[in-house]
Formats: sequence, structure tokens, C-alpha cells
Amino acid sequence: MAAKEISGSKLLKLAQKFNNFYLSGFEKGDCRPFFVGNCQVGLVRPDVTNHLLKYPEIFLVQPHAVILNPAFRDYSERSTQVEKFLRECRSTNTFITLKGWRDESYEVRPSFCHEPLLKMERSATCLFGVCNYGVDINGYVMDKEKGLCLWLQRRSPTKQTWPGKWDNMVGGGLSCGYSVLETAHKEAEEEASIPRELLANLKSGGCVSFYFESERGLFPNTEFVFDLELPVDFIPTNNDGEVDKFELLPAKEVLERCFTPDFKTTSCPVVLDFLIRHGEISPEKEPNFLELVELLHVPLQGIYRRFPQPVNENGRNETE
Amino acid sequence: MAAKEISGSKLLKLAQKFNNFYLSGFEKGDCRPFFVGNCQVGLVRPDVTNHLLKYPEIFLVQPHAVILNPAFRDYSERSTQVEKFLRECRSTNTFITLKGWRDESYEVRPSFCHEPLLKMERSATCLFGVCNYGVDINGYVMDKEKGLCLWLQRRSPTKQTWPGKWDNMVGGGLSCGYSVLETAHKEAEEEASIPRELLANLKSGGCVSFYFESERGLFPNTEFVFDLELPVDFIPTNNDGEVDKFELLPAKEVLERCFTPDFKTTSCPVVLDFLIRHGEISPEKEPNFLELVELLHVPLQGIYRRFPQPVNENGRNETE
Repeated sequence: MAAKEISGSKLLKLAQKFNNFYLSGFEKGDCRPFFVGNCQVGLVRPDVTNHLLKYPEIFLVQPHAVILNPAFRDYSERSTQVEKFLRECRSTNTFITLKGWRDESYEVRPSFCHEPLLKMERSATCLFGVCNYGVDINGYVMDKEKGLCLWLQRRSPTKQTWPGKWDNMVGGGLSCGYSVLETAHKEAEEEASIPRELLANLKSGGCVSFYFESERGLFPNTEFVFDLELPVDFIPTNNDGEVDKFELLPAKEVLERCFTPDFKTTSCPVVLDFLIRHGEISPEKEPNFLELVELLHVPLQGIYRRFPQPVNENGRNETE
Repeated sequence: MAAKEISGSKLLKLAQKFNNFYLSGFEKGDCRPFFVGNCQVGLVRPDVTNHLLKYPEIFLVQPHAVILNPAFRDYSERSTQVEKFLRECRSTNTFITLKGWRDESYEVRPSFCHEPLLKMERSATCLFGVCNYGVDINGYVMDKEKGLCLWLQRRSPTKQTWPGKWDNMVGGGLSCGYSVLETAHKEAEEEASIPRELLANLKSGGCVSFYFESERGLFPNTEFVFDLELPVDFIPTNNDGEVDKFELLPAKEVLERCFTPDFKTTSCPVVLDFLIRHGEISPEKEPNFLELVELLHVPLQGIYRRFPQPVNENGRNETE
């Protein structure tokens, strides 16, 4: 009565790697839910909580929750107060992730279709386990000899995060003020100099969601995924200094590269989803196909609704 | 601080409809886990449990679990004993689902990559909340004027389940003895008379998973999804009497039809996944895009591992 595939395939192990928090950290329960009003918007690790204790005028640290001071009444005040805290932490080198300070803000909200409750410096969201949203473009070519080929980028060796690692052709975070499609267009131009007329072929293909943890913090990530078929003779070139080089690889070699330590772990889900949607990873070839697809779509949109919601100091349910 | 889209889009409501058990029944906790050895393979509703109590030689009904008698030592004995019970229930008209007795068996296993522990009559698996696996083919045409069009079938009015409802071009359950691809080929020939040479273009596109409940029982369903681009002049014809007619519809009209009561609820996930993968449902058009994609991939492969595992009568962990 033994499982056929107890240990799991290489692909399943990769999916477990970029879901290390979803599959184990989350269940451990040593993080505290982070609330803004009655909405949970994140999760705080014990090491971060210890620092928040020093700022009782900003964070109310309770035994089972961290609450942003409900005296801050609106988006602007919440954003300003949290930024004050983060700038102090940055100046005292409290958190390694803030070494990568970007001066770029992400919206903080309980789920994507909810109004933002505050904005937060991009490099700090992992301290609070705030859901991150990004956009990725799979640039591909149908080569007559090699079949389906995918363009990859190697990140610049001077990038703060994942320097020198292989990555999707184009990818970027969804910053305040930009829609999903606007972000796709902006990143395609900045990162790979893709001309407007080629971008007319951009096709939405879905999204992937996973929950990763590293020494920097917690990453509940959702990526909007686009496919772009490119002419055989088009070669992407970088425009913003963030890319070392581009390379066109047959689908099989892309997959092999995902298994090496040279690939950015959190960019693998987009590649795997592309290879699944295009029939390169199929149930006939992959024994853990179903688990794999499920681990590319973990239920992040509802994940913070699992926790009970504390009543805030004013006894108001602010979502009403 | 109100949600932008509190009530949810039409598409989100549809995804909630075919996940009615995942989103509410599952949490209620009035069903008992169904164990074979130490492996949970299903979930039993109270109405079914009441009948199982009359067969203590086959089912051990405990306060928090239903266990198949561990005295049955192998696949064959377990299958025979359960079939004996089911045939008695059928002869006494105990469960409406058994009116649709198919004489076709499904494998019962804790997850898809696990060895089967027994086989069970197809129409009975919903009594035990056993995971069902199926295969669906999206037959599509790229029409120069109408754009992306999809073939739908209307089910025969004499079918036991969902008679006369609209459905995917080709779909069928994964029965004992057939692989995923074999099932796809078999159903394509039987249901839509698709010739071998066209089937060479069949492309795996992923899978969908959802957990539906009806008066018949519990349906934790996973469908392996294939796309098949068809020539503009090809018209599917039925071979096995199970289809009333076929119709080719532009993508937008397919979606409209999914919203009507004339579409088989549990076939909508495959259509929505197809329209998402082909860019017809996109984040720019659909406010609940992320929730929608998550509800097309609910984590069924691990869903029965959430429950604590009772020690069986012999104190053996049979998965070791």
C-alpha cells in the first residue's frame, strides 16, 4: 500500500521550494497576523515583532496579533507613520531587506480587489508578509528546428536581490499608480526594449500564486502572466541597466536551468506555468502533475481570512 | 475602507457555485473522514453514515471517522466488499445517485500519484466524497471573422446526470485501466468522432480542480485539460448516443451560455480555464481575476491530509 512516488519528482521538489512557507512555515504558527483595522493584511515573524515592540505608538503588539495603531485614520496617515518606522530601521541597519531600499511603493490591502489601506516601501513588505503582485512576460519563439523556445534574462550582478540569476524575459512589481497592463508595457520597454507594435500581440495567460520565505522575510507572491510570441529575428536589449544579458533557449533547456541554483527561485513558477499551458509539461511525462499545478495556484487571496479577527480599540468593524 | 467589489463579479459567483462544498460545506465539519487503512480517501455526509451503520461488518463508524474494515487485506477484497454493499443499496433504492449505476469503476486513492486501494462503481464515489478524475478536450477554431470559437456539445436528454445540458466538446471520467491520454483519445472518438490524424494536434493545457456538492453527493473533481485546434470545416458527430448535438460558438457567447442554467455546472471550470489561458478572460476585464484562477485550482490533492489520522485496529501505519 505504498505511494508510487513517495519522494516526489524533481518538479514537485522545485514547487515545494518556492512554497516553503505555504507548506511548513504557515502551519507552524509562530508568526502573528498583522491587522489594519479589522482586515488582516499580513503576517509578522517573531524577529520582526521584537523590533515592533519598541514602537508602541505605531504598532500594538498583542499576544496573537500585531495591529497598526487604529488612531491613524486614513491611507495617508497610515502610510506616513509606517514609513517613519521603516526609515529609522533602515538608518540603524535593523533588517537586511532594507539594504535594498527602492523608493518605490506597493499598495497594502487584504486582497487584490480591496481598496488599499496604506502604501509601503517595496523592500519592506516582506517584513510584514504583505501580498505582493507582479507582472511577467514570457517572450517565446516558435523555431522551425528547435520548436518552442523561451527568452530568459540574466539579472545584473549589481541587483540588490538575486544578483546574476536567470529570470523571465520581463518581470516587475505592480507599483502604486499602475494597472496590470500598464506595468506589463512599462517593464517590456524598460527591461527588454520591446517595441509597441510587438506588444500588440501580448496575451494574458492567467496568474500564478505561491508563498516563499527567505532570510529577508515572507513572500506571498501573485504574478499576472502574459505570453508574447516574438519574431524569430527579434533580439531583446536592455534599457535600464538591470539586465546582464538575454538568451533564447529551447523549452527543455529552460526547464533544466530552473533546476540549477543559477535560476531565481521565485521566477520558476512563471516558467513552469508557461511550460504546462503549452503542453511541454504534461500528465503523461510528469508523475506529480496535479500537485504541481496546485502549488502554482495556492489560495493566497483568502489565506489571511483564515485567522479570527480581533475587535479594534474603537470596537468598529472598519470593513463594514 | 470598503471593498471595491464586495458582492463579487458574475464569474466569481459562478466559481463559488461549482465550489459550494469547498467554500462552505467543508468548513461546517458535519461530514466524517473516510479511511482505508491510515489513508483518508474521502468524506461521508451524515445521511450516508446512517446507512453505513447497518453494515458493521464492512464499515466501522466511529464518532469522528468512517473506516473500511481493516480485515479486508487487499485491493480485490476491499473492492468486492464495497461493491456488495453498493449493490444492496441499489436494489433497495437507498441512494438516488445509484439510479445512474454505470457498471464502470473508478480507482479510490488518497491522491492521484498513490497506488489505488480499491475500485468503486462510478455512480457511488459521490457517496464517499472520493476524488474523481476526468479528461476534457476544448475543441476550438480560429475563425477569421468571429475570432476564437469553441465547440460545445449538448448532452443527450436521456443521460442519467445533467440531461440536455450544454457541456464541453469532449469529456469523460478516468476509468480503471486507462491512462489520461488514452481516455482523451477514447472519448474524442466515441463522443465526437474525431479522426486520429486530427488528434495528433492534441495539446495538454493543465488541469482544473474544484469541490462541488449536490443532492447526489460530494464531488471533489479534478479534470485534465486538453486543447485541440480544429480545421474550420470540421464538424464533430456523435458515435455513442450520449450527445444530442454540437454547436460552434464565439468565445463571448460560450461565456454567456455558462451563466445560464442550461450549462452543466461542473463543466464550467474547464471552459473558464480555457478562456483564461487564451486571454479572453483577463485581469483588465475581470475584477475578481485572481480569486477566479484560485477557485479553478483548489488544493484537492492535499485536502484529505488536513484531518488527523486515526490509528487502525492493528496499530499499523499502512502507508509505511
